[in-house]
Amino acid sequence: MAEQAFARGAPRVIVAGATGFAGALAAELLWRHPRFELVAITGRSEVGTRLDHLYPRYRVPLTIEQLDLDGLDRIEAAVVAYPHAAAAPTVGALREKGARVVDLSADFRLASLETYERWYGAHPRPDLLGEAVYGLTELHREQIAGAAIVANPGCYPTASVLGLAPLARAGLIADLVIDAKQGISGAGRTFDETTHLSMAGENILPYNVARHRHTPEIEEQLDLLDSGHPGLAVQFQAHLVPLDQGELASCYVTTTRPVTTPELQELYAEAYASEPFIELASEPPGTREVQATNFCRVFAVADGHTGKVVVLSALDNLWKGTSSQAVQNLNVMFGFAETEGLL
Amino acid sequence: MAEQAFARGAPRVIVAGATGFAGALAAELLWRHPRFELVAITGRSEVGTRLDHLYPRYRVPLTIEQLDLDGLDRIEAAVVAYPHAAAAPTVGALREKGARVVDLSADFRLASLETYERWYGAHPRPDLLGEAVYGLTELHREQIAGAAIVANPGCYPTASVLGLAPLARAGLIADLVIDAKQGISGAGRTFDETTHLSMAGENILPYNVARHRHTPEIEEQLDLLDSGHPGLAVQFQAHLVPLDQGELASCYVTTTRPVTTPELQELYAEAYASEPFIELASEPPGTREVQATNFCRVFAVADGHTGKVVVLSALDNLWKGTSSQAVQNLNVMFGFAETEGLL
Amino acid sequence: MAEQAFARGAPRVIVAGATGFAGALAAELLWRHPRFELVAITGRSEVGTRLDHLYPRYRVPLTIEQLDLDGLDRIEAAVVAYPHAAAAPTVGALREKGARVVDLSADFRLASLETYERWYGAHPRPDLLGEAVYGLTELHREQIAGAAIVANPGCYPTASVLGLAPLARAGLIADLVIDAKQGISGAGRTFDETTHLSMAGENILPYNVARHRHTPEIEEQLDLLDSGHPGLAVQFQAHLVPLDQGELASCYVTTTRPVTTPELQELYAEAYASEPFIELASEPPGTREVQATNFCRVFAVADGHTGKVVVLSALDNLWKGTSSQAVQNLNVMFGFAETEGLL
Amino acid sequence: MAEQAFARGAPRVIVAGATGFAGALAAELLWRHPRFELVAITGRSEVGTRLDHLYPRYRVPLTIEQLDLDGLDRIEAAVVAYPHAAAAPTVGALREKGARVVDLSADFRLASLETYERWYGAHPRPDLLGEAVYGLTELHREQIAGAAIVANPGCYPTASVLGLAPLARAGLIADLVIDAKQGISGAGRTFDETTHLSMAGENILPYNVARHRHTPEIEEQLDLLDSGHPGLAVQFQAHLVPLDQGELASCYVTTTRPVTTPELQELYAEAYASEPFIELASEPPGTREVQATNFCRVFAVADGHTGKVVVLSALDNLWKGTSSQAVQNLNVMFGFAETEGLL
Repeated sequence: MAEQAFARGAPRVIVAGATGFAGALAAELLWRHPRFELVAITGRSEVGTRLDHLYPRYRVPLTIEQLDLDGLDRIEAAVVAYPHAAAAPTVGALREKGARVVDLSADFRLASLETYERWYGAHPRPDLLGEAVYGLTELHREQIAGAAIVANPGCYPTASVLGLAPLARAGLIADLVIDAKQGISGAGRTFDETTHLSMAGENILPYNVARHRHTPEIEEQLDLLDSGHPGLAVQFQAHLVPLDQGELASCYVTTTRPVTTPELQELYAEAYASEPFIELASEPPGTREVQATNFCRVFAVADGHTGKVVVLSALDNLWKGTSSQAVQNLNVMFGFAETEGLL
Repeated sequence: MAEQAFARGAPRVIVAGATGFAGALAAELLWRHPRFELVAITGRSEVGTRLDHLYPRYRVPLTIEQLDLDGLDRIEAAVVAYPHAAAAPTVGALREKGARVVDLSADFRLASLETYERWYGAHPRPDLLGEAVYGLTELHREQIAGAAIVANPGCYPTASVLGLAPLARAGLIADLVIDAKQGISGAGRTFDETTHLSMAGENILPYNVARHRHTPEIEEQLDLLDSGHPGLAVQFQAHLVPLDQGELASCYVTTTRPVTTPELQELYAEAYASEPFIELASEPPGTREVQATNFCRVFAVADGHTGKVVVLSALDNLWKGTSSQAVQNLNVMFGFAETEGLL
Repeated sequence: MAEQAFARGAPRVIVAGATGFAGALAAELLWRHPRFELVAITGRSEVGTRLDHLYPRYRVPLTIEQLDLDGLDRIEAAVVAYPHAAAAPTVGALREKGARVVDLSADFRLASLETYERWYGAHPRPDLLGEAVYGLTELHREQIAGAAIVANPGCYPTASVLGLAPLARAGLIADLVIDAKQGISGAGRTFDETTHLSMAGENILPYNVARHRHTPEIEEQLDLLDSGHPGLAVQFQAHLVPLDQGELASCYVTTTRPVTTPELQELYAEAYASEPFIELASEPPGTREVQATNFCRVFAVADGHTGKVVVLSALDNLWKGTSSQAVQNLNVMFGFAETEGLL
Repeated sequence: MAEQAFARGAPRVIVAGATGFAGALAAELLWRHPRFELVAITGRSEVGTRLDHLYPRYRVPLTIEQLDLDGLDRIEAAVVAYPHAAAAPTVGALREKGARVVDLSADFRLASLETYERWYGAHPRPDLLGEAVYGLTELHREQIAGAAIVANPGCYPTASVLGLAPLARAGLIADLVIDAKQGISGAGRTFDETTHLSMAGENILPYNVARHRHTPEIEEQLDLLDSGHPGLAVQFQAHLVPLDQGELASCYVTTTRPVTTPELQELYAEAYASEPFIELASEPPGTREVQATNFCRVFAVADGHTGKVVVLSALDNLWKGTSSQAVQNLNVMFGFAETEGLL
């Protein structure tokens, strides 16, 4: 346990912000990764604590340090797991030290500065926006390969856009409702009424009604895919349900023309047949099937009764929704097999 | 505990089918009820077992009997908790003995025999359809008061129609998606992959995709409320989430004309202000807030971004969604205060 | 909902510290109680918040106030739900205003000042220790009836001592191991790693190993019951398990002489047959059977293989373990039926 | 996903009884194992079903077959996951075909035929008892290396005996209480009141009071370790708690002489310092820390108050308690690194 096995000459990587759920899992995945050398983990709190004491299930025997860019030796890669707005300056600093960065925050996800500022306030480093690539691996693999900054998608956009991309590309989405449900790990290492087992347990809780920050991210990505139908306003609603890791996006699509289930199956098979991490389910997928994996499991059906298309997209919000997708992106960025360290 | 306190001359009631979750809770509620005398509980299995042994949390010291209509003394009321199609003949027989019946099955919920037979097969007692009243108390109180047979609504239709009735009555629903989530008790005393904690736990599971039997029930009720817009095809999708009792219907309404949130608030206040069991929530309601109660908690908001209306309707699927609503209906049928035995 | 029904001339009661789990439930139970008038609820935080906003499941429409003893009208009773050491001064002040107090803290549970100070530090009001009665209703009913201060027991001592009292009184306990398990509500409204669903879920967590503060309380109570065997050192160990409300004390007793199961049954029946809130189980009791009730369910068996006696004692840590027992004590103190407001 | 990566010339292994939780996980672990070739999985039900349809989270694309010993090619190893008494004949038949077998049932765990027959009834193959080695890897590694039949231990004995072995070897156990708690997966693919989420959830349930079949297994193993203190009668009690995978054995030891915590630490470090799968915890271990791993995490402390020693031993009942320990044993039997396929 005490030694990390990695290839000689492996890229040296750090995780900045390893105390939260996302950063800690990224550290765990990189520690076990055969191709990267995890050389440091940093935090804005818990400095001096070993990660395997903070998260005993993650057997990473490194000690959380304060981020000291000058003290760090040559770093080739970094995962930044800071809150929105706090991330951008650190991403910039790491970038200037020569590291290629996967940023887990929202800071570089939106191409439109205006949209960003409407939802998150002033952007600390708008100058870097142009350098960033949206890290939904399956859709932007080629750009990610050469990117200096990869904006790792939000978990809801990952599930939603992967579920909807074949429809969007085919110009089939006329109207769209996304009802998403997520386990409590989605709230992160936050200690409040939302996460207390005696409050979150035995509960189904809708939140951020009619104003979730992931909405513009989904809209922007769908727009990119469907140049013919710009400006679709997506009805997105999130809910917390009492489990740890798991997320389901149930998407209800009013189509631009009638579609049949066989047609959908063909469309999705074409889009995803060779994707290592997309599973086309033969039954409606439960999130348990993808827990603690980088898989996204998708099921699409045309409802003969209403004429709508229902797409169900399941993933683990902490894994494919966040940290394992970051590793998938690092694999692409450094030319490794995309599944390396993830199966 | 061993004695039931009831008023002298209280109506004598039985529960037929007390071994399932719904019947057992109905028995518990009627046992504790100050106005009814629970004189027998029957089952098609577990005959000879005391209910408080089968369900130790329900302290009802009665023994489950085989249903013997001739052996029963004068019965004024019955709750029938049988599976669909099995219920109708028993409802009929009890009716012929003079009892007024609340039927928890789907057998008398649909006014249209054709719709029933499309979803459930041949109807065993179509002759009784005309006698039955749909038991959504808040909407059909007056008819229920005089009814011989009350068809207790499904849990999803209860949450959905209560959430949507003010909009339907105002002719505001142009298109409708309902995404419903429910705890595992919704699967009843069924022992399989759906209910095993090691399979249902840490899972979010969509089921009956594009073909849930509650859909026509919701459609029929909404049609009744909105004579101007018949034949709306409702997109309804159900999910199981890992809790015991609780249900949330998230309703996404494309409106026939623009609506504002204040207008919605007025509409809902007008509809529900004097309802003892409808709570108009000031925050998006979690199901935990209504667990083990007969309350339905409703929240409606206009989404300025999409123009749609979002309605969130929370209840306990076993209580207001099933058994306590049956008691609410019995209260109405026998002229008691509607809240009797339920607060 | 908006009006409390209580008898004319009902004792006026307040709950001090209504923001925590225990105080909030005490307020809920007293609000619904037919014999007490809940006139105020106070808190050291959340002043100005309505209790039904802080805890939507408790439909108590009172606003949390700062405790102002002078501003309060004639108060006959109070429940104090403050942390240990913080409670005693408030109990004293209320006492001086003429109220009879049930204190949920540990401040008046231990007769021995020395023991208190070893576990909790300096006692703020040692002068009041003599006035306090230990509020395990079933064991000290007569003293409680006349008491000015009732020290409501800890939840673990309630389960343990109720389970063991018949053995202790018979002088049968030679050695004793208590292994107790509790739901997460036992940690209270504490927001940390212990209560976060993503950390407490899927976990079984032993805590306070070999040093739980409830140990001396159990020892003192068992000593009182068994004058012939003073000074028994009890091996007590607590665990958190992933549910909300529920507690099981599994007690392993090395007996002073061989005992048979029929003998145990007689002993327990004699002790508890007429107790309204003790249920002698015919099967090993699960905590679900007593959730949200004031019942304690007890099962005792002699193990022929080891010669030891196993006692299993189940209750709801927040109800019989805390708040509903406080109401049971108030019923006794004010001469009401002991079950009033609790069935 | 569709191809298994294994070394050329890897031992060919089958899993007999792959439909239950234990067999399915064994199949998953062997499918992913770099040194074994999983050539077939069999079942007594679900023949013709693919394992990844029965257990979607296990991505094993093999189809469940009927066990046909004659039809199977050269098999070098087998895991048998059959119920007690059903296993022995199949183990015998596989043995006769030349396979080395790890048996997950109790059939070969007890050296004493008399003890077996007292707890399980007639033994189907007593002739094979002499060939079997008890598969608690850490204690019997050398014998396992050469064994034809390895009796994989019960999950409770694994946790208990690993926790207690250092004390037993030192002759320190004078009296012993083991209170064990386990997640619902311990009940296996059983569909009944024990596993239904609406019954097992929000519950702590003691079971098999004073008569658990794992007791004699623990006693026999402790006897083997402590030749000086034969015939210790162990007080063992099991409980189900509402999680999926996880088990904690809380052991309360009355010692033969006074022991200090530093002495314990030395004793345990000596016993386990070089064990790859035993973690000596610095804090009381939660089961979450070892979920889905082959680790057993142990914590021992002397209680100055009672003089007893408390040992807490945590593992995943399905992994180290069952299936991953089977793989650990196969690694030893075939001369692979013990951690192969398990980290």
